[in-house]
Amino acid sequence: MRLQHATWQEVDAYLRRETGIIVPIGSTEQHGPNGLVGTDAICPETVAWEVGERYGVLVAPTQNLGMAQHHLAFPGTISLRPSTLIAVLRDTVISLSRHGFTHVFFLNGHGGNVATLSAAFAEIHAERSMGYGPQPVGELHLTTHNWFAGSRVRELAESLYGDAEGTHATASEVALSWFARPEAVKHVDMSPRIAPRGSAQCDADEFRRRFPDGRMGSDPSLASIEHGERFLDASVSDAWEAYRAFIRPI
Amino acid sequence: MRLQHATWQEVDAYLRRETGIIVPIGSTEQHGPNGLVGTDAICPETVAWEVGERYGVLVAPTQNLGMAQHHLAFPGTISLRPSTLIAVLRDTVISLSRHGFTHVFFLNGHGGNVATLSAAFAEIHAERSMGYGPQPVGELHLTTHNWFAGSRVRELAESLYGDAEGTHATASEVALSWFARPEAVKHVDMSPRIAPRGSAQCDADEFRRRFPDGRMGSDPSLASIEHGERFLDASVSDAWEAYRAFIRPI
Amino acid sequence: MRLQHATWQEVDAYLRRETGIIVPIGSTEQHGPNGLVGTDAICPETVAWEVGERYGVLVAPTQNLGMAQHHLAFPGTISLRPSTLIAVLRDTVISLSRHGFTHVFFLNGHGGNVATLSAAFAEIHAERSMGYGPQPVGELHLTTHNWFAGSRVRELAESLYGDAEGTHATASEVALSWFARPEAVKHVDMSPRIAPRGSAQCDADEFRRRFPDGRMGSDPSLASIEHGERFLDASVSDAWEAYRAFIRPI
Amino acid sequence: MRLQHATWQEVDAYLRRETGIIVPIGSTEQHGPNGLVGTDAICPETVAWEVGERYGVLVAPTQNLGMAQHHLAFPGTISLRPSTLIAVLRDTVISLSRHGFTHVFFLNGHGGNVATLSAAFAEIHAERSMGYGPQPVGELHLTTHNWFAGSRVRELAESLYGDAEGTHATASEVALSWFARPEAVKHVDMSPRIAPRGSAQCDADEFRRRFPDGRMGSDPSLASIEHGERFLDASVSDAWEAYRAFIRPI
Amino acid sequence: MRLQHATWQEVDAYLRRETGIIVPIGSTEQHGPNGLVGTDAICPETVAWEVGERYGVLVAPTQNLGMAQHHLAFPGTISLRPSTLIAVLRDTVISLSRHGFTHVFFLNGHGGNVATLSAAFAEIHAERSMGYGPQPVGELHLTTHNWFAGSRVRELAESLYGDAEGTHATASEVALSWFARPEAVKHVDMSPRIAPRGSAQCDADEFRRRFPDGRMGSDPSLASIEHGERFLDASVSDAWEAYRAFIRPI
Amino acid sequence: MRLQHATWQEVDAYLRRETGIIVPIGSTEQHGPNGLVGTDAICPETVAWEVGERYGVLVAPTQNLGMAQHHLAFPGTISLRPSTLIAVLRDTVISLSRHGFTHVFFLNGHGGNVATLSAAFAEIHAERSMGYGPQPVGELHLTTHNWFAGSRVRELAESLYGDAEGTHATASEVALSWFARPEAVKHVDMSPRIAPRGSAQCDADEFRRRFPDGRMGSDPSLASIEHGERFLDASVSDAWEAYRAFIRPI
Repeated sequence: MRLQHATWQEVDAYLRRETGIIVPIGSTEQHGPNGLVGTDAICPETVAWEVGERYGVLVAPTQNLGMAQHHLAFPGTISLRPSTLIAVLRDTVISLSRHGFTHVFFLNGHGGNVATLSAAFAEIHAERSMGYGPQPVGELHLTTHNWFAGSRVRELAESLYGDAEGTHATASEVALSWFARPEAVKHVDMSPRIAPRGSAQCDADEFRRRFPDGRMGSDPSLASIEHGERFLDASVSDAWEAYRAFIRPI
Repeated sequence: MRLQHATWQEVDAYLRRETGIIVPIGSTEQHGPNGLVGTDAICPETVAWEVGERYGVLVAPTQNLGMAQHHLAFPGTISLRPSTLIAVLRDTVISLSRHGFTHVFFLNGHGGNVATLSAAFAEIHAERSMGYGPQPVGELHLTTHNWFAGSRVRELAESLYGDAEGTHATASEVALSWFARPEAVKHVDMSPRIAPRGSAQCDADEFRRRFPDGRMGSDPSLASIEHGERFLDASVSDAWEAYRAFIRPI
Repeated sequence: MRLQHATWQEVDAYLRRETGIIVPIGSTEQHGPNGLVGTDAICPETVAWEVGERYGVLVAPTQNLGMAQHHLAFPGTISLRPSTLIAVLRDTVISLSRHGFTHVFFLNGHGGNVATLSAAFAEIHAERSMGYGPQPVGELHLTTHNWFAGSRVRELAESLYGDAEGTHATASEVALSWFARPEAVKHVDMSPRIAPRGSAQCDADEFRRRFPDGRMGSDPSLASIEHGERFLDASVSDAWEAYRAFIRPI
Repeated sequence: MRLQHATWQEVDAYLRRETGIIVPIGSTEQHGPNGLVGTDAICPETVAWEVGERYGVLVAPTQNLGMAQHHLAFPGTISLRPSTLIAVLRDTVISLSRHGFTHVFFLNGHGGNVATLSAAFAEIHAERSMGYGPQPVGELHLTTHNWFAGSRVRELAESLYGDAEGTHATASEVALSWFARPEAVKHVDMSPRIAPRGSAQCDADEFRRRFPDGRMGSDPSLASIEHGERFLDASVSDAWEAYRAFIRPI
Repeated sequence: MRLQHATWQEVDAYLRRETGIIVPIGSTEQHGPNGLVGTDAICPETVAWEVGERYGVLVAPTQNLGMAQHHLAFPGTISLRPSTLIAVLRDTVISLSRHGFTHVFFLNGHGGNVATLSAAFAEIHAERSMGYGPQPVGELHLTTHNWFAGSRVRELAESLYGDAEGTHATASEVALSWFARPEAVKHVDMSPRIAPRGSAQCDADEFRRRFPDGRMGSDPSLASIEHGERFLDASVSDAWEAYRAFIRPI
Repeated sequence: MRLQHATWQEVDAYLRRETGIIVPIGSTEQHGPNGLVGTDAICPETVAWEVGERYGVLVAPTQNLGMAQHHLAFPGTISLRPSTLIAVLRDTVISLSRHGFTHVFFLNGHGGNVATLSAAFAEIHAERSMGYGPQPVGELHLTTHNWFAGSRVRELAESLYGDAEGTHATASEVALSWFARPEAVKHVDMSPRIAPRGSAQCDADEFRRRFPDGRMGSDPSLASIEHGERFLDASVSDAWEAYRAFIRPI
């Protein structure tokens, strides 16, 4: 059910029975001393592939780059500007819409993408509302689901880590990424154990001053591969529930 | 304390003691049968002027146009695209930053602006994080405060209207706008009494299909000028608290 | 007759009898030692509201920010780049055009906006001329009227101030803004009495070198509230004459 | 003195004694039944080359495309959008500024370019005023001279054609272009003799409705090669006077 | 050696010994009856990971979307406009440059990306050449290597398929993608055996008219997993040779 | 057959029998010690005019500015950014397409334009493929022919100069430009006789370090006016052959 592994004739056949698609979107940014630069892309990709496999939903290629400007003072971060990401999302949706996809479900792994996703949806809808956009296309529904914010995931993170979950380089996302990439697990002592809390709405230099090792409010040394497996189950249930409600609202 | 009423020498003097500024931002869009097209601009402007008056904070001119593409099927709505609004906010902040303003507090009256404000802040910060922007400027802090989401305002709306408050053309915003513009009060029967609920993330034609008279989940016939006065008090307290926490974080 | 004070149903009713609208557009920029930062927005807004009141023409919210890059070396100035202002004007016109407005009359208070307004009109028309724009919309007429350049206003300024009228922070605009905002009148001695003359086509630092206190060729200490009232009458007559000629050309 | 005919070493030598340059800018658009599509480029180019020759001023290559959207309903017209032309002018000026040119004198042949030239200058200056542009560059002066609006040219046109000069496909510009390109002279009867007058601020289809054969208020059948020679002399004097005043203001 | 699997501290350490990085870039587009929609991303990603593994070069996340507008009439294709892709590449390079990467090697899997990659490099260099870009960054080298155009790969394709290799949905790329994704191999008869040849420089509808099943000049039914393994070896040698020459030119 | 010398009625008549057009495109950039800054525009313009004359094909005005950012460290160079050039080419093609031109043949004189031309074509086609562009226009074919890369020109350059032809400020283009502008011939000794070879994919300062006098691999002192005449013949034959194959493919 991965678009990358299908032929165009197989996509054609899929569109005759189903017009929804999942697009995983992440980021490429530092995730503290033991978290992977790819965490935010690996997590939603893993969840999306599992949803696709279990329930027969087509999954587009992962958008690996997101809006991560505040992490640019840490080596390895690659950020798009919001205006660039809006253009990427717009072209993605127009392309899918041309083929007859009516419901595009962005499965998101990065809090920093949320506002830009929403702005991009409005930009796309505005083309039609202002009457100058891709007028022939029909119905078009767009939504974002943050895997890390589903109710089952939130509950599990609370029960496993409590206050040490944090808001960036969280224990839960590190756990899920380790389950997906066990060869990349790193064991690192955290100092301080729980990172400082605060706002990420600033530029890169200021962010690094506020959060010297990149973590925000978390102790990701609590993460484990076994936890990751449980997060996958929880997030697949959350995402599938959200997808169904999106495709066929009551 | 209104920037429009100051000379440049007065602004110069202000900057020697204080480097924060409030920018009211609203929208120009339908607000149902008895709500004003200007509701979303009038409300934050009224709150901002009152905060400015009481506490000596400078208030910039109101940004009257916001992101309202989903309301374009109702006459009178004027919308900026997100990309246009990002450019406006960017130029506004760069201008203020050049003069030495370090804290720009957007007092917002429209839910549809929230994502674009956040994307705009990231666009501005990204210029600096990527090293190609207005490098000489110093400290720069940006935030959004939604007057309608402050705790005192929420509590008052709950106590006065409960479920009939709604999410667009709400009873509370109609009340506040009427207090600010008593000459424009309209008495209209609502049918159905409480408007349908749902999502506004769609284009203009779809929005009008979902919400035929423009209201979302509200009964704004419950609004009154007297309520409006109480909302002003509540929102001024909320906004001032938020402003102080922004300017001088503990 | 202010769009901000109407409901969408009232706009709907207006459109059945009349499809013209006035959009006041100004700037937020220094106006010398006794002129208000908001002068260029306050003046056309005041004229537009009076025209609307007397003659029943709908008036859109004021565009408070204009093209004022050359004033940025004076605190309080907020400028849009021409490209940003073009986008704002384009979205404004497309929004109005969608509702059936056919004649958009920009009542302008700032000389620095004139070229950008004209470029924006051409950008909007070019979308249609190139066949890729908002094709369904019908007739579309766009014009700019500078309140300060009407024949009655010019004559009055000449008779009251002669050479001391100047070209920025003029005596006439200071007078009109004071009539509109009597609470903001400032009495300041001018030195030199008449400011230097010259061109404003330069960047901000160069502008401040050329015009140290912000005035260009004017002595606005000659202004008075009583003069302002006369300027209002003259400019309302000028604007109404221009509006009628625009809406119903002979 | 044509930049296209110089080597870079010759430009280098020129810059040691002089830092001004003339950039001819025109348009590619219909000019009625006997006017050439290239009229607006050929005229300023011819004037510029003659000024360059007589007075030793460097002349850049002609910008052949301008803002001509209103002429697009006539075959042969090629128009840039204002936003495109702003980008072209901006890159041109930044390139010249990098080499040390401090005064860029646009010798313009098309009324439709005037607003966009002015907006482009503001866009360029705004980059510096906002502190994010090409900061290292030094002094930068930009101006437009319309060859057709110089006092000697106006006087000559008045004396030769009176009311039949018109405002597009004028007798004077046709005459000058014929002097420059005698091989392209066309003899065509005009009907009506003097074309209708009116405004060109509209889209292409509307323009063609207003001005069926492309002329505006003119009778270009009055033009002759001999007149063209006199217009060249007049316009070279006008342009040289304007250039000197620009380079070395009193 | 995959950036997605590294921590920022590991990237930091890498940068102390090496400042080159490989960025795989592909496309998401139809590849005929037996080729995968993800072929153009899977191939360079596979080559890049192998080069990274064997020679210790860091590999950035794959850019899965490319310039594929001409394939949009086949379901499953997702295309960026050239202008969007330029923005993505620009932000990617600026991000990497900020960290100290000096050599960015794009390992490309799609012919349709070549021109846009080159234009993007020029856009990035132009920011510096015009003096307004990310000035503090140091040395910056950018190049594209097309895995499918390396000498060893060309020789192998010629020897295996001769004329049946083709230019889109080629036998060689199908073979390599199958080796990388054996679970996605499809056996489909081709009719005609060798697809028509021609140019892809056209829009989507025209492309589908020219190439009805999506192939251009190829018979990809000749592909096999075993061939794919040989193409991987050949392309890794080609890419590594090109990378070394890029990093340390003689 | 020059569009600049035609009336719109003549273009109208041409379009009834023929819908192809040639657009010369060059650059304004240094060409070493004896080459003209205008070489890259003068050469294709000369070839285009000759093709137009001999075979009755319409020739649009020359695009004198191209993508020359790498030459900006040499005085006299004027460069457009790729994004600006894309906008220019897009507006040019949309304008021509509106009139009914179906085949636009860019006769190019500058290697640095090739990628951007190709990206611009894709941008134009993408507007249609994505369904939001100038939909009413019909057939649209776009191509680039590099006069310097035609087989007859290559053969002649090889026979005359061998290795001394080089890749920038080549002997062949200097020869052709001298034939076109005999008054601008310069005799300069070259040192070293053959300039260094290398890549031009870098910024302006780096380019000047690599190629101190601006030449790349050439000895243009071998050029002569007589050679130029032979290059004109060869290139006219090459271009006409390419044009015919483009207009009426077999």
